[in-house]
Amino acid sequence: MKEFELIGRYFKRPAPSALLGVGDDAAIVRPTPGCDMHMSVDMLVEGRHFFADVAPRALGHKTLAVNLSDLAAMGARARWALLSIALPQADEAWVAEFAAGFHALAAEHGVELIGGDTTCGPLTLSVTVLGETPAGQALRRDAARVGDDVWVSGELGLGALAVRRRLGWLEVDDAALLQTAQRKLEYPEPRLALGSLLLPFAHAAADVSDGLMADLGHILAASGVAGEVWAGSLPSDPRLEALRPRYLDCLAAGGDDYELVFTAPADLRQQVEAAAAQCACRVSRIGRIVAGQGGRLLDAAGDTIPLKKEGYDHFG
Amino acid sequence: MKEFELIGRYFKRPAPSALLGVGDDAAIVRPTPGCDMHMSVDMLVEGRHFFADVAPRALGHKTLAVNLSDLAAMGARARWALLSIALPQADEAWVAEFAAGFHALAAEHGVELIGGDTTCGPLTLSVTVLGETPAGQALRRDAARVGDDVWVSGELGLGALAVRRRLGWLEVDDAALLQTAQRKLEYPEPRLALGSLLLPFAHAAADVSDGLMADLGHILAASGVAGEVWAGSLPSDPRLEALRPRYLDCLAAGGDDYELVFTAPADLRQQVEAAAAQCACRVSRIGRIVAGQGGRLLDAAGDTIPLKKEGYDHFG
Repeated sequence: MKEFELIGRYFKRPAPSALLGVGDDAAIVRPTPGCDMHMSVDMLVEGRHFFADVAPRALGHKTLAVNLSDLAAMGARARWALLSIALPQADEAWVAEFAAGFHALAAEHGVELIGGDTTCGPLTLSVTVLGETPAGQALRRDAARVGDDVWVSGELGLGALAVRRRLGWLEVDDAALLQTAQRKLEYPEPRLALGSLLLPFAHAAADVSDGLMADLGHILAASGVAGEVWAGSLPSDPRLEALRPRYLDCLAAGGDDYELVFTAPADLRQQVEAAAAQCACRVSRIGRIVAGQGGRLLDAAGDTIPLKKEGYDHFG
Repeated sequence: MKEFELIGRYFKRPAPSALLGVGDDAAIVRPTPGCDMHMSVDMLVEGRHFFADVAPRALGHKTLAVNLSDLAAMGARARWALLSIALPQADEAWVAEFAAGFHALAAEHGVELIGGDTTCGPLTLSVTVLGETPAGQALRRDAARVGDDVWVSGELGLGALAVRRRLGWLEVDDAALLQTAQRKLEYPEPRLALGSLLLPFAHAAADVSDGLMADLGHILAASGVAGEVWAGSLPSDPRLEALRPRYLDCLAAGGDDYELVFTAPADLRQQVEAAAAQCACRVSRIGRIVAGQGGRLLDAAGDTIPLKKEGYDHFG
């Protein structure tokens, strides 16, 4: 199967919101008047971001999901995507499944694939996503203020559990828990609806990809503030507690969560909870922003809990 | 050196035209009112798009240049870029040189690097570029009309010559020619100025990356027309003729040219030449658009010259 046939059959889809989609030197879109454009790119490499034997449908989902998660963290509406893919060979069945996973998630969020590049090489995916917000609005990392609450969406630690178990770092006997964790690892749900609802009143946000304390740390550094996180308030699957003492590493520094960590004024707690209820997404208040610098994970007595590392460094 | 230090030191640069550049979940730009946005992505893989021993500065240039070439082919003004890079290790000297080559070309064209992703993996680069045109204007591939002239910018075949010699497919003794060819291969100049000047009156355009006849073929197929190209009119370095009969393969199907092939009404030849003169870029009239389908390379007698293949297929 030739490169252009592959693109035409599996990646080219109608893109009614674009002036020009897949098939020219560039795609063309008409930005919505009065909106700013948000754009983000993430690259996924076999053996580092996913296991070589991952189901291609799951990989197609996740490749787009991790990028949409970045737009969610800005409070942006997702609009368009471009996909670069290097494949070891033109395996049509594999590409069909990958594309099905990608397009299914795209359709769910009204995202149109408008361009890309297909080449031969070690399996590598790079997606660029574009989103829009009303001009001047965004959940930036540098907008946390002293007195804000710190919140996180969904549940933490499940993706990290699945990775650690697969790597042989953890033993987990609970088959049902493992299945839940594997699902969370392979099919993360980008929190776009929540991000959009938070946009008008929340302060800062980031998506939790490298680990909660690491990603919150980016907010703290960019905003010039400090943060306290209460270990006992971190939301997770109750079955994870059986993994004590390792479970806190998964929750606070595991990564692969693709949840939103965000800050909002303490007097707007009801609005946060109303927004979460509106999109049926769990949110948990896990800490607060204080003066100073750096993030601290605190136990019930208020003492700092040391973490082996706060998150993932690709060259660490 | 850690991932974030690497990004901060070598890739983060002031981006005054962006509302938010490198360092958040997404970058933010404010589109120019009344403009359409053009976007393109290209992925480069070691051993396929470049040799493993390429100078990192040249690779930094070329990684951006091949993407800007796509915007040039749309007639767009280049504005912003995002860079995904997978590196086998955090080699600071290598990254410094790569970034220098990338930023030098970006500065030359007023392009700002506003985002990206850095990870560990087999050396792979993926750049997304964004450009603008006045709303509704673009040099699309589907706009060629019967009666148009076919033009090409610059000179053809030099990049292909350098690749073929390196692969041992061709012997070339002329050291000065080789140096010229190597330079063209490593430092292609995106024809952005020419594209912008052609935008108001040319019809269709594509950039010549896979090979002249292949890339012209995309225009012909998209426009539902046929094209005749006169082999004797293909512009190149006169020293290339010494390579007969192989040189025609380099010129017409070699690829790695990053020139523009475009069509324009036959009564606007003076405008094409004036645009070329204004930006000091050679242009050559090499053929014409006729009714039918497919492209034909013709000799002086008007007979079709067979080519071994028209261009590059990544899975061919």
